[in-house]
Amino acid sequence: MAAAFSIPLWADLLAVGIGGVQGALFAAQFRDRRLDLLGVAIVGIATGFGGGVLRDILLSTDIAPLHSNWYLVVATGAALLGMLLERIFVRVNVGITLLDALTIGLFCAIGTTKALAFGLPEIPAAFVGVLAAVGGSILRDLLLNLPIALMHVGSLYAVAAAAGSLTLVGLVSAGVDVYVAASVCVALTFGVRVLAVLFKWSLPEQRALSRLPRIRPRPRR
Amino acid sequence: MAAAFSIPLWADLLAVGIGGVQGALFAAQFRDRRLDLLGVAIVGIATGFGGGVLRDILLSTDIAPLHSNWYLVVATGAALLGMLLERIFVRVNVGITLLDALTIGLFCAIGTTKALAFGLPEIPAAFVGVLAAVGGSILRDLLLNLPIALMHVGSLYAVAAAAGSLTLVGLVSAGVDVYVAASVCVALTFGVRVLAVLFKWSLPEQRALSRLPRIRPRPRR
Amino acid sequence: MAAAFSIPLWADLLAVGIGGVQGALFAAQFRDRRLDLLGVAIVGIATGFGGGVLRDILLSTDIAPLHSNWYLVVATGAALLGMLLERIFVRVNVGITLLDALTIGLFCAIGTTKALAFGLPEIPAAFVGVLAAVGGSILRDLLLNLPIALMHVGSLYAVAAAAGSLTLVGLVSAGVDVYVAASVCVALTFGVRVLAVLFKWSLPEQRALSRLPRIRPRPRR
Repeated sequence: MAAAFSIPLWADLLAVGIGGVQGALFAAQFRDRRLDLLGVAIVGIATGFGGGVLRDILLSTDIAPLHSNWYLVVATGAALLGMLLERIFVRVNVGITLLDALTIGLFCAIGTTKALAFGLPEIPAAFVGVLAAVGGSILRDLLLNLPIALMHVGSLYAVAAAAGSLTLVGLVSAGVDVYVAASVCVALTFGVRVLAVLFKWSLPEQRALSRLPRIRPRPRR
Repeated sequence: MAAAFSIPLWADLLAVGIGGVQGALFAAQFRDRRLDLLGVAIVGIATGFGGGVLRDILLSTDIAPLHSNWYLVVATGAALLGMLLERIFVRVNVGITLLDALTIGLFCAIGTTKALAFGLPEIPAAFVGVLAAVGGSILRDLLLNLPIALMHVGSLYAVAAAAGSLTLVGLVSAGVDVYVAASVCVALTFGVRVLAVLFKWSLPEQRALSRLPRIRPRPRR
Repeated sequence: MAAAFSIPLWADLLAVGIGGVQGALFAAQFRDRRLDLLGVAIVGIATGFGGGVLRDILLSTDIAPLHSNWYLVVATGAALLGMLLERIFVRVNVGITLLDALTIGLFCAIGTTKALAFGLPEIPAAFVGVLAAVGGSILRDLLLNLPIALMHVGSLYAVAAAAGSLTLVGLVSAGVDVYVAASVCVALTFGVRVLAVLFKWSLPEQRALSRLPRIRPRPRR
């Protein structure tokens, strides 16, 4: 069984903090909705470690971010800071996009390897990894009563994580060391995400095959 | 303690696949929302085995659909197939409605007996069974940011499952064999659901008693 | 380790019943949405013990309200009674607001001490307590596809619970007996909530610091 890939607490908290700041910046678009300070904090908490909570619920194990005082403090603090210093953070937006791409890569690798360590088969393990990476943004949209962003046409976010996590489980199945596989996962997720933002890659919209069902085409009138 | 009623993996996967197809057909109504392929897959996954995930979370046990590679593959594949072949599936709509009624009956019986096997009392066990049957559609509506269909006036869906699961726990309490009780549950859920669609049965809308509070009626003017 | 503060079953069920009635009264505002009887029951169940379910999911333990037949019966019955007798309950609205303030205090104290008993650190324990108190209203709003009320400017609800639960963990850390600390928590939550309703206290809306980023102020024209 693979060991879980883990990162030092400070790196995990940095990732949670980036999530918190991003949640607050996202919430700032909805000034007309009269969110109060608590609402901003809730969005920050959900975005910061909602993915980790979903991951641990699906693994039926202790919710890791609730077993340290730091996660809630960092996520709430980052959200309020993000709200107050919105103008500064918007200026360093490129840096935040890069850090965020790194964050989803890290969450994805941690989630996938943790799921493998809990004995999940390859595909569910990759699924849990993707949900760990993007679950925060799903929870954020649910709480703000918005359409779930990642289900709609837009730049690749969950797809980047899926590329990373499927590669990870493939490499681990092939006998590659879990730390190497996790590093490839982080790099691949980061790369796909950044390239998707740069080149505005997106998935095609839903559409049905329009020709298939007609066995004999109707004559044109 | 009752044993859990279980069905072969292929039957379970068939049910998940029907859920996936239905999720995609449902999503196809919302073309203007610009769902992408991933969005369709997520709706399919949620509709296909969201109920099983909720059931296992409420039972504080391992999430069964995440312990096999097949569920995710079948739900995602069925959703994409449902999207592409929408015109074919729409033509066989009667067949899908019948299979769906069978599916909620099966999920209901599996959920209720699993809850009984985990030691839940009768009423919560029936509740878990209903949620296992209809949880996928609740999750689907949450993710699509729609009002939850089954809370609104419409043909009986959860009520069919509730009739089945309450009958099941009643029969098991009366000492009937769990396989017999589960079969009655499936048949009853199927029957109520199909008859409700045929005859457009629905529950009454919410309304308050308008007369009750007046002890002495006001004289008419 | 602190023992969990617990209350007799009848008091817990009374609190669940108050939640159920409130859920139904809340749902009654949305007559135009065509909620049916099942919808009202679901809102009642979610409002009545949704907080307890979320609490136990976050603690990775058995869902307590599903281990007795009474919770579902009381929550459903209370919701339907609340729907039918809306006119009576609206007249005793002051009494319901007071009972509700007591209810969130009790749920908060029970949730916080249960989390401490499960070994959670102080801040996550307080967080779980707050979620136990207000989770029902979050779930209600999610299911009704409404903006989550407590994230928006309005009278203090979650803040009252947070004041109570943080005081509770502070007192327990300082060596105060858990029953004394829990009683202070209930009283404080109740007090803050009632005063907030009376004096229309609210949290400030989200806003960014507008001056901070300019190191040198632009000269006025």
